[in-house]
Parts: sequence; C-alpha cells; structure tokens
Amino acid sequence: MGEFELLALLRERLPAAGGQVRVGSGDDAAISVPAGATATSVDALVEGVHFRRETASLRQIGRKAISTALSDLAAMGAAPGEAYVALGAPGELGEAELLEVAEGLAAVARETGTTIAGGDLTAAPALTLAVTVVGHAPRPEDFVTRAGARPGDILVVTGELGAAAAGLLLLEDREVPGDDALRARQLDPTPRLAAGQALAAAGATAMIDVSDGLAGDADHIATASRALLLIDAEALPIAPGVAAVATAAGRDPLELAASGGEDYELFAALPPDAVDAARQTLAQLGTPLTAIGKVEAVEGARPGAEIRRRGGGAVRSRGFDHRRPRGPR
Amino acid sequence: MGEFELLALLRERLPAAGGQVRVGSGDDAAISVPAGATATSVDALVEGVHFRRETASLRQIGRKAISTALSDLAAMGAAPGEAYVALGAPGELGEAELLEVAEGLAAVARETGTTIAGGDLTAAPALTLAVTVVGHAPRPEDFVTRAGARPGDILVVTGELGAAAAGLLLLEDREVPGDDALRARQLDPTPRLAAGQALAAAGATAMIDVSDGLAGDADHIATASRALLLIDAEALPIAPGVAAVATAAGRDPLELAASGGEDYELFAALPPDAVDAARQTLAQLGTPLTAIGKVEAVEGARPGAEIRRRGGGAVRSRGFDHRRPRGPR
Repeated sequence: MGEFELLALLRERLPAAGGQVRVGSGDDAAISVPAGATATSVDALVEGVHFRRETASLRQIGRKAISTALSDLAAMGAAPGEAYVALGAPGELGEAELLEVAEGLAAVARETGTTIAGGDLTAAPALTLAVTVVGHAPRPEDFVTRAGARPGDILVVTGELGAAAAGLLLLEDREVPGDDALRARQLDPTPRLAAGQALAAAGATAMIDVSDGLAGDADHIATASRALLLIDAEALPIAPGVAAVATAAGRDPLELAASGGEDYELFAALPPDAVDAARQTLAQLGTPLTAIGKVEAVEGARPGAEIRRRGGGAVRSRGFDHRRPRGPR
Repeated sequence: MGEFELLALLRERLPAAGGQVRVGSGDDAAISVPAGATATSVDALVEGVHFRRETASLRQIGRKAISTALSDLAAMGAAPGEAYVALGAPGELGEAELLEVAEGLAAVARETGTTIAGGDLTAAPALTLAVTVVGHAPRPEDFVTRAGARPGDILVVTGELGAAAAGLLLLEDREVPGDDALRARQLDPTPRLAAGQALAAAGATAMIDVSDGLAGDADHIATASRALLLIDAEALPIAPGVAAVATAAGRDPLELAASGGEDYELFAALPPDAVDAARQTLAQLGTPLTAIGKVEAVEGARPGAEIRRRGGGAVRSRGFDHRRPRGPR
C-alpha cells in the first residue's frame, strides 16, 4: 500500500469537515474562511520522550496528541476549529497500526467538534505526531492570553491536580499500587475546551493550561503579566488517589500536584467579582473550579509565582520535565 | 540552558510579527485576524528520510523545511502569512546548532514575508521539522485547488525540471560529476510564491507544486479534476546540467525531469487564452513558464496523466520516493 492509498484510508476515519472548512484534506492546502480571529498552536509528541508504546495504546497516543494540542486552545478560551497532523511513522508500524492512531485522533476530533483538515505522513525513526490546531473567536480580544493578570485578581484552577503525575508513577513502576483512573489521566487527558470558553466569557484576565506543572505554568503567567502570583498549597484540589500513590512512591502529594504537570487543567486569573458566576457556570459543565490564590503587585520585586504552605515555606519543585527523554532510550 | 531560555533565543532570530498577527510566539497560541480566506498546510522533514546532515547544513535544513511547506501555499496561489514550527532535536545538537536551524527558518521567513508565529521544541531521536503554514486570499474561490482543470486547458510548468533529482544524484554519489547549482536545487529549493499568485490571478483552473515528481503530481490533478492530462515529454524544460548528470549516472534525463520530484516548480492548467498573459507576467518575475501539454475529457476512460514521447511510448517512471527512508539508517 502506497502513501496515497493509506492517506485515503486515514481520511475515511475522519469526521466530515466543519462549517468553516471549504476544502479539507487532500489538496495542497485546506481552505477555510475564519469568521473572526484565530488562535493557532502546535504541539508534538515523540515516542520515547512523551510516551512509550509499552504503556500507551496506539489509539491513546493518537488521542493524547490532539488533546494536548487542543488544550492550548482551551487556555485561550477559543472554540476548537481545525487540526493539521504531521505523522511520522517507523517502518515496523503497518497499515492497521496507523489506522489505530488515526482513529484516536478522529475520536477526539468528533468529541470536540474539531475538523482534521490536513496532514502529512512520512517515515520516521520513532512514532511522532505534531498537531497544529486552529481555534476561533469573534474578535482577537475575546482570547485570553497569559499577559493580563492584575493585582487583586483571584487565581483559580479547574478540576483536580496531580493525577497525571501519579498516573505516570503507576505506569513507570508496577510496584506502586493505584487505580486505572490515575493512569487514564496520564494516558488520555481531556482538553478543557468548554471550561476555557466559559472562563473567557466570565472575564478571565489571564489563562494557561497546566502542562508543565502548576508552579512553572503560574510562573509563565507571572512573567507575562509582570505580577506576583501567590498560591496557597493547602488549597490545591488534589485528585483522589494521588496521596496514596505519592506515599507508596515516597513522594510528597503536594509536589505531584504543584509540579507534576500534564493534568491539562486550566489555571486562570479572575476579577474577584467574577469568581462566583464562573464557578456556577463551570459546575453546569461538570467541572469544579477552585480558588487557590491571588495576584499581587510586583512593587520592585521580580515577577514570579510561589506555592506557599500555610506552615511556611514553598513547595519543593522537583522537575518532572515531560519534554526531556525518559523511558526506554 | 533550559527549554524556555532556548525558545527565547530562537524567538530573537525571528523577524517581527506581520500585520495579521496580534500575538506571536510565546503564549499558549498565536492570535491572528485573517482578512479573508486561509489556506493551511503541514509538511514534515525527517533526518535520514528527507535529508542527511552529512550533505546538508543545519541552516539549509531549516531553510528547506519552511520552503517546502510554503511551496504548498504557492500551489494554492496564496499570499504567505504565518508559519508554526514543531522542532524535534536529538540530544547531540546543542544550542548553537539549533540556532543555525532557526536562522535558516528565519531567513526564508524574511525573504518571503512569512511570520513564524509559534512553535514547539522537543527532544527527538532524529532532527525533525514539521512546519504548518497559513496563507491568505480575499475569498476562498481565489485559491486554486487541484480540482478545476477542464478539457481544452493548456498545461504549463514554471522554471525548469530535473535539477533537484540530479542534485540528489550528485550528493549521493561523489563519483558523478556536476555543478553546485544542481546540488543547491536539491538542498535549498525556492517556493514559487509570487508565480503562484500570478498564475491564480491569470485564471489557473488547477495547480500543484512538483514535489513528488511531475508524473505523480499531474496524476493528482487528473484524479481531482476527473480529466486526462497529456504531457509532451520533449516539451519539458529540463534544467541545464541535468542531461550530463543523467548520462554519467546511467539515467534518462527525461526520467529525472518527469519523476525526479522536489523541484518545487508549479504545474498548472490555464485556459488557452490566458497563457500568453500569464507567461508575460511571470517573465517580469524572472520565472519562465512553459506550455507542456493539454487537458482532455475523460470520456469513459480512467482519469490520469501521461507523459508521452513524440516517438511513441510513455516516459518510464522509476520511483524517487523522497518520503521513503534513504541514507544512512
């Protein structure tokens, strides 16, 4: 089977093109007519760096690649639009295996209303998925960047933290006991697209998805907004089961929640009078929203974020850098 | 040096954001306000598959990755807009080497008026560049797809063919004599962006860039347009020096021109009364335009393209599939 026949089979797996796409996959480029402003981001997953085929199914790998890219759109408050997938496939993966990857991509596209409008298939030494996503909003100022947090804003986070890091510990060390829900949070994260749009509509002044770890991601907002972000460690919504896994692995549960990363929850700054309404709106989506800190003026200090324990001292941040190679190589 | 510091250094290499980009690289996503319709394409280059570091400099690899992606926009008649780069870097490449890649990307961005508006940097077992490009036109119907070729249309090609394939022969076999201009056509192709926009304005009914080889690319237009494409082998504009390299390597020059691929010239169908004006407009851009065939009705036959010798018989197409692994692996 040649490249073009396989591409045709892959295209059959995709949902029909959405309203803004006039010409989808199969020409030199996809043609779209954006209704207003666009938010565009690219995210790549590489075998042996971001996942291992020993612990993740091909379908899960396809799902995670598009979900993590879409999470960046969630963090802008964008409505998901189109995705473009560059798939690098090692020679040992046959047609059936590549179709499993495609089905994972297509399933998330269907679930989120995203059109996979284009792609590229090439040989590669390791399974590689680079996914570019385009989201939409009526006006550019409707998107929420990292740069608008103001002194007095309340810091909030969706859902629960630490589950993806605990899931990774379970996947990497079979001696540690823990349940499948935590593994699923590592293997198959959910982009918080509806919550992101709701937080944008509620007046979020800055927003980011928790991919590198709350401590690092809060630091990005602090730097871009030139502000101090003070986070209350005891207020962090730690996912059920994380404490047990952390204890079994000799780790601090707060550390997993604060710097584990890959939870793909949204961390945002909201004006104080917007928090209650935002919490109610997100509750209707089934997504908890927790206030975990506040924004303060820099006043001569360096912009930055700190996660403080009430007893004093910051949570120690031990790197879980998911961009560095780990696993079998 | 961490990922974020390196990203900041890479961003310094980039030209300033263009008019449609409101927020460029550095947030969760770039924000843009397209003026009309967009054309979007993704193209990936992988070390050991599309290039070898023994024969291409890091700067050339950066240049080629964005140039080949932009070539797809040229084939739509799009004005170049934004590029998003997913860069996978093996551990042995240090900061200085990655900056060389970035400088190659930035140089082509500057030359073509493209804004590199976002990216992702990750570890990878082989140097990998997946580049997503977005081009613009006032209306979706201003773009030229592969699907509009009509019986009676004249088939034209820009520039010269066979140079990239001859250049590859020179790079892969040092015994074959030939000049650096041919190697440069393989290592550093030029996207025909101005020519593509001119052909679109001249009324091109279908267009594609010659990346897989003229025979295969003509077949894509034939299939999408449900037409027969008859191409005169002796009319092909073969680049200077190709005949000598082909002879030295025991190859047919016509075969290199017809199926070598990677010339990144544009192949288009034009209404007969549009050809002269298109040729004159392209001459002002310094780009030759050669009529090489015509479009005929299918009339019950299968859609397809054929490159015919005047003496009879089709040019044999021996695969130069640049997507299959070649080189040292």
